[in-house]
Amino acid sequence: MADIDSRLDKTQAQPIGVTTGPIRGSRKIHVASPTGSGIRVAMREILLEPSSGEPPVRVYDTSGPYTDANAAIDINAGLPELRAPWIRARGDVEEVAQREVRPEDNGQLGPDRSGGVPPFPNVRKTVLRARPGANVSQMHYARRGIITPEMEYVAERENLGRARLSEYKRDGESFGASIPDYVTPEFVRDEVARGRAIIPSNINHPESEPMAIGRNFLVKINANIGNSAVASDVAAEVDKMVWSIRWGADTVMDLSTGRNIHDTREWIIRNSPVPIGTVPIYQALEKVGGIAEDLTWEIFADTLIEQAEQGVDYFTIHAGVRLPYVPLAAKRMTGIVSRGGSIMAKWCLAHHKESFLYERFDEITEIMKAYDVAYSLGDGLRPGSIYDANDEAQFAELYTLGELTKRAWAQDVQVMIEGPGHVPMHKIKENMEKQLEACGEAPFYTLGPLTTDIAPGYDHITSGIGAAQIGWYGTAMLCYVTPKEHLGLPDRDDVKVGVVTYKLAAHAADLAKGHPAAQVRDDALSKARFEFRWRDQFNLSLDPDTAEQYHDQTLPAEGAKTAHFCSMCGPKFCSMKISQEVREFAKLQNQDSADFIAAEEAEKGMAQMSEVYEETGRELYMGSGGREHD
Amino acid sequence: MADIDSRLDKTQAQPIGVTTGPIRGSRKIHVASPTGSGIRVAMREILLEPSSGEPPVRVYDTSGPYTDANAAIDINAGLPELRAPWIRARGDVEEVAQREVRPEDNGQLGPDRSGGVPPFPNVRKTVLRARPGANVSQMHYARRGIITPEMEYVAERENLGRARLSEYKRDGESFGASIPDYVTPEFVRDEVARGRAIIPSNINHPESEPMAIGRNFLVKINANIGNSAVASDVAAEVDKMVWSIRWGADTVMDLSTGRNIHDTREWIIRNSPVPIGTVPIYQALEKVGGIAEDLTWEIFADTLIEQAEQGVDYFTIHAGVRLPYVPLAAKRMTGIVSRGGSIMAKWCLAHHKESFLYERFDEITEIMKAYDVAYSLGDGLRPGSIYDANDEAQFAELYTLGELTKRAWAQDVQVMIEGPGHVPMHKIKENMEKQLEACGEAPFYTLGPLTTDIAPGYDHITSGIGAAQIGWYGTAMLCYVTPKEHLGLPDRDDVKVGVVTYKLAAHAADLAKGHPAAQVRDDALSKARFEFRWRDQFNLSLDPDTAEQYHDQTLPAEGAKTAHFCSMCGPKFCSMKISQEVREFAKLQNQDSADFIAAEEAEKGMAQMSEVYEETGRELYMGSGGREHD
Repeated sequence: MADIDSRLDKTQAQPIGVTTGPIRGSRKIHVASPTGSGIRVAMREILLEPSSGEPPVRVYDTSGPYTDANAAIDINAGLPELRAPWIRARGDVEEVAQREVRPEDNGQLGPDRSGGVPPFPNVRKTVLRARPGANVSQMHYARRGIITPEMEYVAERENLGRARLSEYKRDGESFGASIPDYVTPEFVRDEVARGRAIIPSNINHPESEPMAIGRNFLVKINANIGNSAVASDVAAEVDKMVWSIRWGADTVMDLSTGRNIHDTREWIIRNSPVPIGTVPIYQALEKVGGIAEDLTWEIFADTLIEQAEQGVDYFTIHAGVRLPYVPLAAKRMTGIVSRGGSIMAKWCLAHHKESFLYERFDEITEIMKAYDVAYSLGDGLRPGSIYDANDEAQFAELYTLGELTKRAWAQDVQVMIEGPGHVPMHKIKENMEKQLEACGEAPFYTLGPLTTDIAPGYDHITSGIGAAQIGWYGTAMLCYVTPKEHLGLPDRDDVKVGVVTYKLAAHAADLAKGHPAAQVRDDALSKARFEFRWRDQFNLSLDPDTAEQYHDQTLPAEGAKTAHFCSMCGPKFCSMKISQEVREFAKLQNQDSADFIAAEEAEKGMAQMSEVYEETGRELYMGSGGREHD
Repeated sequence: MADIDSRLDKTQAQPIGVTTGPIRGSRKIHVASPTGSGIRVAMREILLEPSSGEPPVRVYDTSGPYTDANAAIDINAGLPELRAPWIRARGDVEEVAQREVRPEDNGQLGPDRSGGVPPFPNVRKTVLRARPGANVSQMHYARRGIITPEMEYVAERENLGRARLSEYKRDGESFGASIPDYVTPEFVRDEVARGRAIIPSNINHPESEPMAIGRNFLVKINANIGNSAVASDVAAEVDKMVWSIRWGADTVMDLSTGRNIHDTREWIIRNSPVPIGTVPIYQALEKVGGIAEDLTWEIFADTLIEQAEQGVDYFTIHAGVRLPYVPLAAKRMTGIVSRGGSIMAKWCLAHHKESFLYERFDEITEIMKAYDVAYSLGDGLRPGSIYDANDEAQFAELYTLGELTKRAWAQDVQVMIEGPGHVPMHKIKENMEKQLEACGEAPFYTLGPLTTDIAPGYDHITSGIGAAQIGWYGTAMLCYVTPKEHLGLPDRDDVKVGVVTYKLAAHAADLAKGHPAAQVRDDALSKARFEFRWRDQFNLSLDPDTAEQYHDQTLPAEGAKTAHFCSMCGPKFCSMKISQEVREFAKLQNQDSADFIAAEEAEKGMAQMSEVYEETGRELYMGSGGREHD
């Protein structure tokens, strides 16, 4: 990357390695809620060249304080607790001693906790829990007509200054979604009450900035991170989270397995401004030495409490993998590809009993409502290949997830539904339609889907194609896939490519749905492109560093940033330049002037600029990289 | 790249730099046409592990002799003339002296031809042309009921052994396409006769292997290359073409501008086994010193003949940019973004006259039918931004292209239609529907479309999303976009990424259309994945080198290529492994056996393998790169 601001803060006793500093060309702003409640919503503002006369462009910002030039970051202390006063003000929580950390929580058989990850230094002694009989879920408040500060925050966050956009005509196709022109706190409350949106917000994760997942809001994306059996650098682990949200991840799943799983999670949550999701069965499996058959309800329930107390915002629970569905999966090309799903299938078969996740689902819900942990009902039987897409096993489970959704809603617990997987394009829509029908419009959260199996190494793209489509059809959150999918472990660059790919897919979906705030950024960037404001074009893009780096590979000189042509077509062939002349000419015609714009003048300016152009002696693929193919 | 076979052939007098050698794990085969005519069709066969008992997988092969281990490559001599006997056997061509090369053909004002590119050493003294009154277009033969060897070649090429696939059930949604279970030469003839498919096959490019572009055939992709003002290494130019077709480009457009344009093209065509397209107005503009207003019909027509004699297979002609449409474009956010379109708009305005391309269209057609050059009717007014998508200017031109299609067809000249551009997802289908209606089902050939403007640096993906969709809806050929789009000139890696991205988009479209040969490769790869045949998984992928390289970044040891787990989940968490156990168990149950598969045995094998796993001391993003997100 050209010049990522990835500094080590040498003033810390322990040097930290998380990436901080503003995104190039942007600044963090805090927009006051119009209700006058004092809530200030974090956004990012992209500043454009003063000479352009264009206003700054506000964009949705997931990066938290890390991109705030004025914020002091100390991962040993954790982030400020934005939501703590809101949570306490509701008067329905009690402070209790945190469940004691046991060696097996970190995957160790003995009492030794020296697995390489130090405990988080600022760890809480007490945690919050609903008072007996209380329910602290956002859905519970919503259904009682209460607009929480979280809902108000979400409303303003989704608007992005949308009140100014009344002139935009909306022309999307939203397939039955009900996206309003302007999001009010009451609209958010209503969507949460109906179960059409969730605001993952564990009361023990007050550091998080509220966000909504629902098909009438902007499409969100999730990035997966997680430590490994051999990782020892916890700062690097935190940085993976920070790096993901810098580029736009709306939530992060910690998929850690192996040792140090508890301590690593603590570090991540305390430093995360976005909701954190986990798959608790992974840790439960570690606690029984990796033997699926040895899993018990007690170990699982204890793990839920352990993680809920730490502040996990949503749990993937594979309660839809029922005993009778397992043989259906045995007929498949690629069987069960979900790890959680395969663990539960093995448990069911080994005991020849119904899944304890299914049988004790209401007890799980009891635990979750005491912390406002949201369900992410896992699709343990999702297809792992084009061949298996939309089969009996997959849809049998989906309808069970629908049944469980209603059981969770009966206790006012928030729910989203996980979806596939590998699905060819013509079978994607059926997934969305069946999900909406089976699960009462609970938000859909899909992995891709991958639209072909034949491109390992490029599965961020095979899945980005499917993700854009299913997001358009109504999926609320898209789980990213990196280029290393199916092959290996993504490094920092892979994570960034995965996040940016999914961000653009989500944005393509927002545009196609006709989201009223979406096209502002496209228009600003295209206008900058047409007016040869190169820096604005870079800064408005999802990845300004890469955009500038690519430009500079051919034309590194500073002058090329203001040149009225680019390396693709060169000065003589620039269609945008000619196009501007055409526009001028059309204007002149209207003014009854006969002459075409003085072409000589234009040529003179271009001749000057062509000196810049000639500086590059490298081999050029002339035209092939241009904005044109002819 | 891991170990691309990119050797310099030291036995040549002049060392050459083109990439040769088989694609990893594959071999070139030549399949005899079932008609017994002696035609042998080049294909690629991917060999699978003998122990798997799986047959080799045949795939469509665009790479020509360059990947044939038995072929002798000499770019100074050019490729063998596969089609020469077929062309001559028809008895409708005459040999004429080639138009003399003039200094201005190479963009030089003086007689000096030392611009750095030497003339092709094996250049022809005579060229072919239709006898007076004859028409040598494939469409002309087709309409007279003649099945040419080219049509026969296409039929067998499209089948890929499809006769063996009768057991496949087809379940795609093809939006009105008529894809047969099996392609016969008669079917090809009929499609060409109706104008629904073209076989670009200039009689002066006998080196090309026949291929069809049409919505009832496999979706094709085009890669753009072209020399620059400063390029001097013609071998590198030829290698760009060879590199593109190695990864799957079905046609290549030479978008050269600047000097040496004639000689460079000669080198490319003589060495190209795929059809070559150009935009003749670029060269014509060079001949008048880059002043659009100075263009004349005479210079343009002479350029057409020059290029037709060299063997260009299709011409992009922007004859739809009519004078009355130019003011429509002046209202746009980004004006005219097509270079050819903007040149013609400027000419029209400067002279205040209707475009000579439109006015003399039938004369252009006269020239083209004498060589069988196909039209690629350029969309000079395509939208260059989301804002401008599907506007009046764009569709006004499209309907003019429909009118011109019928005029070309009146002379039996083959036609395809170029399409956008920048289009949000919900407006893509309208493009396809209007094109089919306006242009009588002539093949559509689109650039992307890009589904958002906000991701410069990732426009291969923003456009890959749109390309997969429009390919599904019926577009016959997709013009690639590289990561450098809008920013700079693609290098070798960018070209490869662009080609592979478009190849996977085209394949996703074939799957969704229900093409009967498409899913074979997905199934073979997924089966290999499920059975932990890592090498087969790599070799079946679109880019075996990258797949293996990504795998080896985490697990480089040879043993990991046969391990029954991967780096994403590790031995304990492998869902596919567990899934195989589940399958075994289901089998045992049917055999009335009580015990679950001996888990201990499985564990033992995995413990062995985990030694391989432990070798990697690097930091792992555990789970996040896996085939799973939970």
